[in-house]
Amino acid sequence: MEFKIVGGSIVTMSEIGIVRDGCIIVEDGEIIDVGSRDIASRYPGYDKIDASGCVAIPGLINCHHHIAMGLLRGYADDLALSEWLEKWVWPFESKLTGYDIYVGALLTAVESILSGCTTVNTMYHYAPDYSEAKAIMDSGMRGVVGHVCFSWRREDDLKLTDHLYREWHGKDGRIRVSIDPHACYTVDPSYMVELHNLCLELNDKNHESPVTFHTHLAETEDEPVKVKKAFGVETGKSVVSYMENLGVLDEYTVAAHCVYVSEDDISILAKRRVKVVHCPVSNLKLSSGIAPIPAMLKRGVKVTIGTDSVCSHNRSDMFETMKFTALIHKGVCRDPTVMPAFSVLKAATISAAEALMWDKLGAIKPGYYADIAILDFRKPHLMPLYDEYSHIIYAARGSDVRYVLIDGKLVVDEGRITTVDVEWLLEEAVKARDSVLDRIHS
Amino acid sequence: MEFKIVGGSIVTMSEIGIVRDGCIIVEDGEIIDVGSRDIASRYPGYDKIDASGCVAIPGLINCHHHIAMGLLRGYADDLALSEWLEKWVWPFESKLTGYDIYVGALLTAVESILSGCTTVNTMYHYAPDYSEAKAIMDSGMRGVVGHVCFSWRREDDLKLTDHLYREWHGKDGRIRVSIDPHACYTVDPSYMVELHNLCLELNDKNHESPVTFHTHLAETEDEPVKVKKAFGVETGKSVVSYMENLGVLDEYTVAAHCVYVSEDDISILAKRRVKVVHCPVSNLKLSSGIAPIPAMLKRGVKVTIGTDSVCSHNRSDMFETMKFTALIHKGVCRDPTVMPAFSVLKAATISAAEALMWDKLGAIKPGYYADIAILDFRKPHLMPLYDEYSHIIYAARGSDVRYVLIDGKLVVDEGRITTVDVEWLLEEAVKARDSVLDRIHS
Repeated sequence: MEFKIVGGSIVTMSEIGIVRDGCIIVEDGEIIDVGSRDIASRYPGYDKIDASGCVAIPGLINCHHHIAMGLLRGYADDLALSEWLEKWVWPFESKLTGYDIYVGALLTAVESILSGCTTVNTMYHYAPDYSEAKAIMDSGMRGVVGHVCFSWRREDDLKLTDHLYREWHGKDGRIRVSIDPHACYTVDPSYMVELHNLCLELNDKNHESPVTFHTHLAETEDEPVKVKKAFGVETGKSVVSYMENLGVLDEYTVAAHCVYVSEDDISILAKRRVKVVHCPVSNLKLSSGIAPIPAMLKRGVKVTIGTDSVCSHNRSDMFETMKFTALIHKGVCRDPTVMPAFSVLKAATISAAEALMWDKLGAIKPGYYADIAILDFRKPHLMPLYDEYSHIIYAARGSDVRYVLIDGKLVVDEGRITTVDVEWLLEEAVKARDSVLDRIHS
Repeated sequence: MEFKIVGGSIVTMSEIGIVRDGCIIVEDGEIIDVGSRDIASRYPGYDKIDASGCVAIPGLINCHHHIAMGLLRGYADDLALSEWLEKWVWPFESKLTGYDIYVGALLTAVESILSGCTTVNTMYHYAPDYSEAKAIMDSGMRGVVGHVCFSWRREDDLKLTDHLYREWHGKDGRIRVSIDPHACYTVDPSYMVELHNLCLELNDKNHESPVTFHTHLAETEDEPVKVKKAFGVETGKSVVSYMENLGVLDEYTVAAHCVYVSEDDISILAKRRVKVVHCPVSNLKLSSGIAPIPAMLKRGVKVTIGTDSVCSHNRSDMFETMKFTALIHKGVCRDPTVMPAFSVLKAATISAAEALMWDKLGAIKPGYYADIAILDFRKPHLMPLYDEYSHIIYAARGSDVRYVLIDGKLVVDEGRITTVDVEWLLEEAVKARDSVLDRIHS
C-alpha cells in the first residue's frame, strides 16, 4: 500500500526537526520521503490522507506492559499491595483460559493503537494456543513479547520460551521475542544467569533482530529482603549491584521501574547501558514511589516510558503517561525546567526504539518503518498552537489520534480501528469477564 | 425542555447511590425523578436520551480557574516561574483586548463543557464589555466569576467588582459573583480586610445566592517573604495564620492551592471552615510542590479540585485532574489506600458544590439542578466494567463525555457542543493569537 499524508505539521524526532505544512510518502511499509506539501504531486497514484490541521508524530512505543491483563482493569483498586495481589489479581489470573488472555490482550492492543501507540514491549504467561503475540499480530501492532519466567516453573518456562521464540520471533517483521525473568526475587541467581546466557546465545545466532532481556528491577524498596527470603542470598548494597554482580546487566537489559536506585546504582545502569523503563502512573497507583529519572538522564542512562498493565495504570494511554512523566519530576525536584516536553517525547519514541534495539523505528524519516500517529489539532483544547512539543505532551489526549499507520498499513482511519471488529471484541470481553467470575465463585 | 435519560448507570453521589439500568427525568432545569428504567414510561412526551452502555454523573465542578487565559495554552512551558511570568505571561496578557479575553474564556468554557465540567469558579481581570461572565453565559455553563483585586489598583478594582456584581450576580440563575483578592502578597492587609467586609456585606443583603471569597493561598513556599517585601508586614508562623489573624478566613473563603500548610495551618483551615481547592497538575507543572491533601481530609477540611488555567495545566479537563489527585498522594504517602476513587469524585461534585455554597448542585437527585455529564462506556478502555467509581477516576477521559446537560439544557449532544459554533470559535482564537503576537512584536 502507498500513502501520501498531506498537510499539517510533521514532528519527525530526527535531524529533520519539525516540517510545517508537510508531506510524508509511505510505500511498502516504509517512509520513503518527507518534505513540504509540494512533494505530494510527485506521487500521483498514492492514497491521500488529508492531515490539514493535524500533527504527525512517530508511533509511540510503550516499553513496559502486560497487555494480557486487559480484563482486570478496575477489578480491584485502592488496596494495599498484598491484598490486591493475593485476594484479587492472582485468584482472577488463575482462572483465565488461553482465550481470555487473548481477549484481554486484544482489548489492550486496540486501546493502545487507538491512542497512538504502535509498538509495545510486553511480558506475560505464554500459552501456545492463544497468546499476547497472536493478539498483537491480529491487531496490526508491532511488539516485543516475552514469557514471564519464575524459579518455581523453570522447566516449563524454558520449553515455553523456546516455543515462543521459534513460533514468533521475527514473524511478519512485526513481532520479536524477549527473555523475561520476572524479577530478582522470583528468579534465583543461577536461573537468572541461565536466562541471560540464553539471551546472549540467541543474539549470537541472530544479529538482525536482537532478543532483549526484559525484567522488573527495583520497583519496591523491599526487594533485597525478598531476595534474601526467597533464595537465602544477600544482595549487598542493592538489587542493581546484585544483578550487576550476576553479570546480567548489559545493553540487552530492559529494566522496568528502577524506583529504588542510589547514585551508585545509577552509575551501574549508565555503565552497563541498561535501558530503564519509567512507569510513573503505575508507581504512583501502587504507591511504590517516584523513580529519580532526571538524575538518570543527567548521568546518561537511556530512559524510556511504559504504562504497565491496565490493572495498575487503568489506561493504556501513552499520552497520559507522558504527561505524568513531564509533570511529576517538576514537582518532586521543585524545578519547572526538568523533563521538558521534547525530552519526554524522545523517551517515548527514539529512545524507546533504541531500548528495544529495533532499528528504523521511533522517527519519521526516509528509510524508517511507516509507524506514524496523526493527531487532529482542530479542537478547542489544541488551538491556537504555538509549539507542537508542548501541545503533544501537555494538551493532547490519546483520543485526539485520528489516523495510525503501522508497518505502512492504515490501522486507524478517522478515529476507527480497521483491523478488529470492536463491537465483537467488547462482547467477547464481557463474556470472558463473566466466565472468569463464575469460575472464581463456583 | 423535558428529558428522560434512559438506560446505563447513574452515579448519583447522593444517598441513592448507584442506580443501574436507570432513568433520570429532567423538567424546567431540574431533576424531578431518578429511578429504574421502568419510570421512563410515566413520562411519555419527554425527549429521550438513550444512555444505554453509558454512565451518568453529576456535572463536574472546577473550583479554581482563570478561564480567560485560553489563548496562552502552550505559549511558554518548562521555564522557571519568574521567567515564565515576567518574560512571557505578563507581556502577553498586557496586550489582550476585552474581546481576546472573551475568546480565550469561551475557548476554555467550551473545552470544559465538552469534558463534562458544568460549573467553574474563575478569577480574572473583569472588563464590562467582554468578560469571563459573558463567555460562561454564552457557552451555557454555570459559573462563579470574580474580578481579581490588587493593592496597586484598589480604586479601579472596587468599581469593577461593584459593576460585575450588579451586572451579573444571579443572572439567569447560572452566574454568581465572588470577591477575589489575588493573594496575601499582592493585597495589603487593610485592603484584604476591606474586601472581606465587602463580601460579608453582600451576603448580609442576599441570603439566596452567597458571594464567596476566592483567593490564592500558600501556593509557594516564599509567600511570607513576599508579604514582608510588599507590605513590610511579618506574617508570623505562616500565611494561613496571618490571614486568620486578619479575620478573613471563614466559610466564604475558597482558597486555591494550600501547598505550604503546617499541621497548625490545617487546624485553622478546618476550624474556619475554609474550602481548599487542590490543583495538583498546576502545582506540579510550576513545581510549587504537593499539597498535603490526605492530612487535610483526615482533619475534616473541605477539599475540592481545580485545574487552574490552561497556561499552567494546559488542559481544562477535570478527569485528568481527578486522576492526578487520586494518584499523586498514593505515591507521596506511600499508601495505595489514600484518596480512593469515590473520595476524589466527591471532591469534584458534592464537596465542590458545598465549597461554592451553591445549593442543589453536585448530585443527581430529585430537586437538584439538572447538571449532568453522561459518559459513553462502550469502548475498549472502559469495558468490561466492575466498578463505576474506579472507571470514572482511573480509566475514563474527558473525551468519553457524550451528553452534557446544564440547567436542564442539552449543551453537548453526541459529543458536540450545541451552544457555540466551534469552527467560528477556533478561527477567532487563531486571529486573536495573531493579533496579540503582532502587538507584542510591534
